[in-house]
Amino acid sequence: MKVKEEYYCTIWVKQGDKKTIQIIDQRSLPHEFIIEDFNTVDQVVAAIKDMHVRGAGLIGATAGYGMYIAAIEALSSNSFDDHLYLAAKKLIATRPTAVNLTWAVERQLSAIQKGNNNQEKVDIAYQTATEIADEDAENCRKIGEFGLGLIEEIQLKKKGERINILTHCNAGWLAFVDYGTATSPIYAAFDKGIDIHVWVDETRPRNQGARLTAWELCEYGIPHTVISDNVGGHLMQHGLVDLVITGTDRTTYTGDVANKIGTYLKALSAKDNNVPFYVALPSSTFDWETRDGCADIPIEQRDENEVKYIQGLCDGEIKKVLLTPQESPAANYAFDVTPGRLITGLITERGICEANENSILQLFPEHKFNFG
Amino acid sequence: MKVKEEYYCTIWVKQGDKKTIQIIDQRSLPHEFIIEDFNTVDQVVAAIKDMHVRGAGLIGATAGYGMYIAAIEALSSNSFDDHLYLAAKKLIATRPTAVNLTWAVERQLSAIQKGNNNQEKVDIAYQTATEIADEDAENCRKIGEFGLGLIEEIQLKKKGERINILTHCNAGWLAFVDYGTATSPIYAAFDKGIDIHVWVDETRPRNQGARLTAWELCEYGIPHTVISDNVGGHLMQHGLVDLVITGTDRTTYTGDVANKIGTYLKALSAKDNNVPFYVALPSSTFDWETRDGCADIPIEQRDENEVKYIQGLCDGEIKKVLLTPQESPAANYAFDVTPGRLITGLITERGICEANENSILQLFPEHKFNFG
Repeated sequence: MKVKEEYYCTIWVKQGDKKTIQIIDQRSLPHEFIIEDFNTVDQVVAAIKDMHVRGAGLIGATAGYGMYIAAIEALSSNSFDDHLYLAAKKLIATRPTAVNLTWAVERQLSAIQKGNNNQEKVDIAYQTATEIADEDAENCRKIGEFGLGLIEEIQLKKKGERINILTHCNAGWLAFVDYGTATSPIYAAFDKGIDIHVWVDETRPRNQGARLTAWELCEYGIPHTVISDNVGGHLMQHGLVDLVITGTDRTTYTGDVANKIGTYLKALSAKDNNVPFYVALPSSTFDWETRDGCADIPIEQRDENEVKYIQGLCDGEIKKVLLTPQESPAANYAFDVTPGRLITGLITERGICEANENSILQLFPEHKFNFG
Repeated sequence: MKVKEEYYCTIWVKQGDKKTIQIIDQRSLPHEFIIEDFNTVDQVVAAIKDMHVRGAGLIGATAGYGMYIAAIEALSSNSFDDHLYLAAKKLIATRPTAVNLTWAVERQLSAIQKGNNNQEKVDIAYQTATEIADEDAENCRKIGEFGLGLIEEIQLKKKGERINILTHCNAGWLAFVDYGTATSPIYAAFDKGIDIHVWVDETRPRNQGARLTAWELCEYGIPHTVISDNVGGHLMQHGLVDLVITGTDRTTYTGDVANKIGTYLKALSAKDNNVPFYVALPSSTFDWETRDGCADIPIEQRDENEVKYIQGLCDGEIKKVLLTPQESPAANYAFDVTPGRLITGLITERGICEANENSILQLFPEHKFNFG
């Protein structure tokens, strides 16, 4: 997508240096635009853990490139395979809730083992990393097309009146390789000249909405308003939201959605006010093994200081300020699970389905026999 | 309540100077404890508007003392009554949602007019301001007694296991003259040796939970954990909340509750997970004229910079940092309305009732004929 009129993806191979991966360091957005280089798996592991990169698709793509870097490293290690498997383990362990991580690493492992020698394995790893990234972008583009249909339906009903879409966290292009999931239909609608406005949940504690989604929409010129996470219910009660679209970090084959903490509260409010609530995802985000999302998806708990301190711009510098009494402890659950019963539909690269087992398996019949 | 082992109310007449009112400036808590003097109505008006003081009961008490200061000022004005009515108008206009404001000002006006001369009117204003403050504290103490009963019931069910109470915003002693409403049962339970723990919603955008409720609980030594406003739903899904208690800024006689923005989302989640959801209030917070809270209670919209900037401690100084892109607009709805259907009960100074017209009027029968 566009940054100051230049075109960027969120991750790419450095021009003229095939052994270096580059990313946008999302921690300093919207205040500074910093590009970071990775040459080692440990750098990639730290970058996922400390959220230089984040978001379902981008975590997957980064893990894919991480495995490519691991393969390069493995060439000069004692055991190629041992080094690769250790890297795979480290990458998977970075974020427990995100399913794209495991998906990308396993896809790499099964691709790489087809290589006849180590150099061929490195070439395959490169090829696979590129495929994962390209597919992610292409899937997001398709999600935009299907989601656009929903927005056009609302446009008909509202007879051209401005359409208000609420989103939580950042499931924008910054969370993927390009386009985003929740934002992809928004970009598509804006490109088509539909009059839209986006309510951006700030998304505490890490403010991915206020920092990242708002920044994306600013760069693209889409009308939007940042709100605290507490506001969505009030807006829905007063008819000020026509559609909610969020992303997801893991979706069970039964339609339960693990997404950024607070998504469940917005889904409850959408249900209570008959506002359509859609979740957009590439199929790499499906968990084909978990039936009960609320009971069985592990929820990442992060450092309490992410709640107690907040970062922003002060006198031209990025600073952290303490919000709470120093002695007060804080808890930092990063995700929650929204049961499928609260979700109007899932927007995937193959089309839109209901958030239940039957409807999901109709769209993805190849997964019908994955579970007993 | 206690601050560093000394006893404080939130508002009082300065010792040895009956013409000066003192308050705790809540804007700099928890990082600095600052006491502020008021000698003019305009200072009081600014202090309510800019939230040096805030919270249903304290706004009422401050308005009460504001009318007393107005009466002192009126002595040396051209027209005693004109000055008084102008002050009343200014005080009522400071915060549109809070009903205690109008209640306290009107109580003062009708008391003051009984004075036979201006000096007597000033004396009555002083007397009435003191009564309003003392009654507020006493009502909050009683709310604590009734709420304690609820906590003791849960204690029986949980057989002595720790009880987790979630609260939103600050309906603590800082929001009233003493004890608080939502916190009063918590203080009472803690004093009785019941094992309790409080989940403190940070309450964006102004962080009254993270700053004020956490500070109160720290000073009292009550176990608590600060959470972002997004977390409550997840905790309730996982059985980690036994009881929700919030305050209210205005409650219709039909049981709809206007409280800090985000309360509605917590009530939805409590309902979805069968967690009891109580609202604690002195009867001064009832609006005996409004039937439909969601349609008819005016919701205050505050400055967007309260969302875009956040204040905290950095290198020993209180600083504000910018969270969003500078160009992104923000909206700042300060309250939302929770329909009575989502509320398990109201805890008042006369006891506990259901959040509906019948049950409320049984407890407050003198208001039966206030509306047509």
